[in-house]
Amino acid sequence: MGDRRILILTEGRFGVFDAKTATCVIRYAADEVVGVLDSATAGQTTDKVLGFGPPIPIVATLEEGLALGPDTLLIGVAPRGGLLPDAWRSLIAAALETGLTVASGLHTFLGDDPELVAIAARSGGQITDLRRVPDDLPVASRRADQVDATVVLTVGTDCNVGKMTVAMELTLAARRMGHRAVFVPTGQTGLFLDGRGLAIDRVIADFIAGAAEMMVLDNAPGNEFVFVEGQGSLLHPGYSGVTLGLLHGSMPDAQVLVHPPTRKLSVEDEIEIEPLPKWIELHEQMAGYLKPAPVAGVAINGWDLSESEARAWAERIEAETGRPAVDPVKFGAERLVEAIIAVCSVADTESR
Amino acid sequence: MGDRRILILTEGRFGVFDAKTATCVIRYAADEVVGVLDSATAGQTTDKVLGFGPPIPIVATLEEGLALGPDTLLIGVAPRGGLLPDAWRSLIAAALETGLTVASGLHTFLGDDPELVAIAARSGGQITDLRRVPDDLPVASRRADQVDATVVLTVGTDCNVGKMTVAMELTLAARRMGHRAVFVPTGQTGLFLDGRGLAIDRVIADFIAGAAEMMVLDNAPGNEFVFVEGQGSLLHPGYSGVTLGLLHGSMPDAQVLVHPPTRKLSVEDEIEIEPLPKWIELHEQMAGYLKPAPVAGVAINGWDLSESEARAWAERIEAETGRPAVDPVKFGAERLVEAIIAVCSVADTESR
Repeated sequence: MGDRRILILTEGRFGVFDAKTATCVIRYAADEVVGVLDSATAGQTTDKVLGFGPPIPIVATLEEGLALGPDTLLIGVAPRGGLLPDAWRSLIAAALETGLTVASGLHTFLGDDPELVAIAARSGGQITDLRRVPDDLPVASRRADQVDATVVLTVGTDCNVGKMTVAMELTLAARRMGHRAVFVPTGQTGLFLDGRGLAIDRVIADFIAGAAEMMVLDNAPGNEFVFVEGQGSLLHPGYSGVTLGLLHGSMPDAQVLVHPPTRKLSVEDEIEIEPLPKWIELHEQMAGYLKPAPVAGVAINGWDLSESEARAWAERIEAETGRPAVDPVKFGAERLVEAIIAVCSVADTESR
Repeated sequence: MGDRRILILTEGRFGVFDAKTATCVIRYAADEVVGVLDSATAGQTTDKVLGFGPPIPIVATLEEGLALGPDTLLIGVAPRGGLLPDAWRSLIAAALETGLTVASGLHTFLGDDPELVAIAARSGGQITDLRRVPDDLPVASRRADQVDATVVLTVGTDCNVGKMTVAMELTLAARRMGHRAVFVPTGQTGLFLDGRGLAIDRVIADFIAGAAEMMVLDNAPGNEFVFVEGQGSLLHPGYSGVTLGLLHGSMPDAQVLVHPPTRKLSVEDEIEIEPLPKWIELHEQMAGYLKPAPVAGVAINGWDLSESEARAWAERIEAETGRPAVDPVKFGAERLVEAIIAVCSVADTESR
């Protein structure tokens, strides 16, 4: 894809559940990754830890990492609340000191830290705060309804289920099928991979939906499909407001529900995850008051499943929900794109 | 109440629908208001325009307003999106020049305007940006569930229906009934009246629920009732994320639904307002996934109704919803407080 040379900092969390930024960047931009800085798994290669991708070295110290010739240090872990762990500050300072670009998706902006800014100014290093958003966002007013493109929002039964990955896989599948499709990231990982979009969870509360609306309006022209990365979940105690604002602002034509079938409790709050038919009903209802947006299918997050297990889950979920289900990372998202086309053409016919 | 001497700026909007800050401050702190600055209604007194309260002079120019001896200029209109109209800037500058405190609930912070800050520094004037929020807010984690007080959230069928007013009336009624009750404002008007609380719509999206949770935890100790001011509506295209975050963060024991019965279309987007039973179902469902929170009753916003009309609507709404309904501004909110006590004691019994 691009021509960056990325060293990913995960300090002790690589391969662990919350290092999703690192995992996704290696999945979709492995050719740009020169190494991972992670003392807990140092000495191994990334393919051994993740089970996919090329063998990228994992090193224990910044010094070893610099020897791999990076031009960018990416903060590859997203801690709850997005604050900067103290231990990382000196490491980031040292990386900036050598002239690297440091890209961060934390809520704590590195560019607001006078010391880090001074180091960067001296060394020629750059700070990229992926979560920094424009401060002139609009209040949403249902304008996303007016675009010609088919807008699809990925939604999930929990946070950290793979909504970004599924939006990306849908985009890649639609392109393989010959469609003009665009991926619209709304979180730091997608932004780092793609450049466009904005971190919706960073926006001032009054403008969540307005930011989503703006992104749809900006990305729809010239495309047949706009795949918007969802955030959080409608029942997440901390993030549900972001989820609903994104749904009401982006005004999708269809939704794809992402679910890791082996997860029984939500990861951050240990609340029992509602059955899938409930989730589908809830999402169609909350979207439907403003605009019908059927859940076209279920995307299975099968990170912990074999291919045959994922197929078995897909059958079970199709029987339970009456919607197509597939693990798009293992098998591609073509089946889901077909399902989206099917439900949207039914809706078009009905609205005539 | 307090001992401020307030001049309210509404420039051309006084008595009009969106000057709700001005209306509410005159309703609950009339003894602190020395005048209204509004060229469209100048020459009249506020009681003639609003239909309630003492006769406070309305003047056309800042000069006439200053002659009334104010110590505070309050921006008394909340434009959509909360930006500062250009025409007001010079007026605010002139007020600061004379040493007044200028209190503003706009998203555009006056305190970020170097020119206004310089004027204030020179004259001894003060700038109070009511919407400024702390930047170290938590992510919510269902901690508001743990307080002993009965937490009540006012919710509405639209924005601008009187959720602040109803939370205030509930607090006053509960106190008249001998209960220890606290009002928790979440918007600029309540903040100006009360001081405590924070502007929830200004918070970074990830922390909406966390801010709500924090306010409940801060206000519950020593109180029997915590009445939290709701924001927006669950189906508002622009603000629904704020509404849901506030619901999931504050984890109320009961909700009170506020509705202006003569309103058929939402004010900002002209969407048909759903029937009340739908709203009740929707709110109980969205709260209920995390914690049961029955809608104890309906608060009628009867700003455009006579007493007998309001009574007739109350009867009709009680028949339609099976819940107590009352216009609390006209008749007091005692009936709603009783209804809250009833549904919460039922819930307590059931949970034993």
